[in-house]
Amino acid sequence: MAYMMNARTVKIEWGDCDPAGIVFYPRYFAMFDASTTALFEHALGMTKYQFLKRYEAIGYPMLETAARFLIPARFGDSLVIHTALSNLGRSSFEVTHRATKDGALAVECTEKRVWVIRDPDDAERIKSQPIPEEIVSRLLSEPG
Amino acid sequence: MAYMMNARTVKIEWGDCDPAGIVFYPRYFAMFDASTTALFEHALGMTKYQFLKRYEAIGYPMLETAARFLIPARFGDSLVIHTALSNLGRSSFEVTHRATKDGALAVECTEKRVWVIRDPDDAERIKSQPIPEEIVSRLLSEPG
Amino acid sequence: MAYMMNARTVKIEWGDCDPAGIVFYPRYFAMFDASTTALFEHALGMTKYQFLKRYEAIGYPMLETAARFLIPARFGDSLVIHTALSNLGRSSFEVTHRATKDGALAVECTEKRVWVIRDPDDAERIKSQPIPEEIVSRLLSEPG
Amino acid sequence: MAYMMNARTVKIEWGDCDPAGIVFYPRYFAMFDASTTALFEHALGMTKYQFLKRYEAIGYPMLETAARFLIPARFGDSLVIHTALSNLGRSSFEVTHRATKDGALAVECTEKRVWVIRDPDDAERIKSQPIPEEIVSRLLSEPG
Repeated sequence: MAYMMNARTVKIEWGDCDPAGIVFYPRYFAMFDASTTALFEHALGMTKYQFLKRYEAIGYPMLETAARFLIPARFGDSLVIHTALSNLGRSSFEVTHRATKDGALAVECTEKRVWVIRDPDDAERIKSQPIPEEIVSRLLSEPG
Repeated sequence: MAYMMNARTVKIEWGDCDPAGIVFYPRYFAMFDASTTALFEHALGMTKYQFLKRYEAIGYPMLETAARFLIPARFGDSLVIHTALSNLGRSSFEVTHRATKDGALAVECTEKRVWVIRDPDDAERIKSQPIPEEIVSRLLSEPG
Repeated sequence: MAYMMNARTVKIEWGDCDPAGIVFYPRYFAMFDASTTALFEHALGMTKYQFLKRYEAIGYPMLETAARFLIPARFGDSLVIHTALSNLGRSSFEVTHRATKDGALAVECTEKRVWVIRDPDDAERIKSQPIPEEIVSRLLSEPG
Repeated sequence: MAYMMNARTVKIEWGDCDPAGIVFYPRYFAMFDASTTALFEHALGMTKYQFLKRYEAIGYPMLETAARFLIPARFGDSLVIHTALSNLGRSSFEVTHRATKDGALAVECTEKRVWVIRDPDDAERIKSQPIPEEIVSRLLSEPG
């Protein structure tokens, strides 16, 4: 059994950076959110829009996340973000991200998320739900 | 010895929220960053712009942060963020944030940051530095 | 007949600013979006979440906007944003914003938006719709 | 004499979208800002960090921008942004962006910016400056 992994390159833009000239750290979480989505899109061969629709889901909001910032990055830098599923529960799952700059670890992040649908008893609320079986099997497949 | 605390109210805007209709979690980190700054501004009686200039500092970038998300918030909600210094080292410090919605804990966050100046040996780099004595004494004062 | 107006104060945060130390201009549009919402909330005495729900609307997306940037603002600055309805059509409306810093005009912006609902023939699409009569009458009232 | 042009593809992320499920329009301005930078980087063969340093400049802040939004885009969509220099003054310049979705014009934007340096008489201020000759000649070259 192997968990799905993915890597993508992110270019740091001027607008990602703060007056110290380095990435304003909340922007890393937006990059990691997109990296988790890229992992799912890669595994499922569909965009997030498509798979949320197919499985009638609202998303996979964050329960917990933690990050360590080791090397600052600035506009013009390219980071490679390696993303891997690290645990897969019934309705929750964990992901780790490692962003490297010139091969050196710059930021690492862990996250725990939950698969949610619209609450059938109250359309204004969301509610956790088992991750669909098809998604589970894809997330456990070794990419070809 | 008591550590400085601060509270502020944040209104959740449409633009803070994602297609699930709830806060896109990276936005919380931007709110917490502003809350840490509000704590310093409150302690020092100066804006961040003013105290960075006075102490010739670049800022207090993040070393580590972790957050738990318990209750989703959506546009129109008001959150009260309580922010407290939880540890004060020589050049690093720790802060905790507790965001409540209608009195219930919605998000909690811990962070460890470091005080930095421009590296005198390399203007392109930043470098940790002991937190100025005046700031330490203000952060340890009970607010009047 | 008088159009509704509103004013609010916005504090510029570190995270709103770029490596030049001044507001990254896309952030102004997020501030203006919140100002237009504040105008509606003020006129209707409800949050956007509440009035979208009451009138079964999706929102009022932007059709056209234009802005001029006259004075840069940086973290720690407070801007006062004056927002006024400048035209009210059947389904579209226009708003102007004037952000001042220490009394001097820093940014001015015009916008044209349209009231939209979910398309009854295709739930994936949005569709313009006449602005509800109750909202029109409130937007034309002089605030007490 | 031909002005420099550039095109790049931008993937719309979940975090770029609002509760209506479409791009929160201020995010387009961040995309266009990065597109203008891509144009310069392409023309000069350097990152923005590198060319600002080489020419001792602070950046090219926005003077005026205007945009029209014709077709909404949502997460999972890919936009192609065509960016072209449309006017080149002594210290200011104009750029147009056309973002297309599946070949149809989704957003168009014009902008007027100014080249700035740190004010030699007051390090806290920025000051317009003629665009360096080397940059002008590169921006006027036909790309190979």
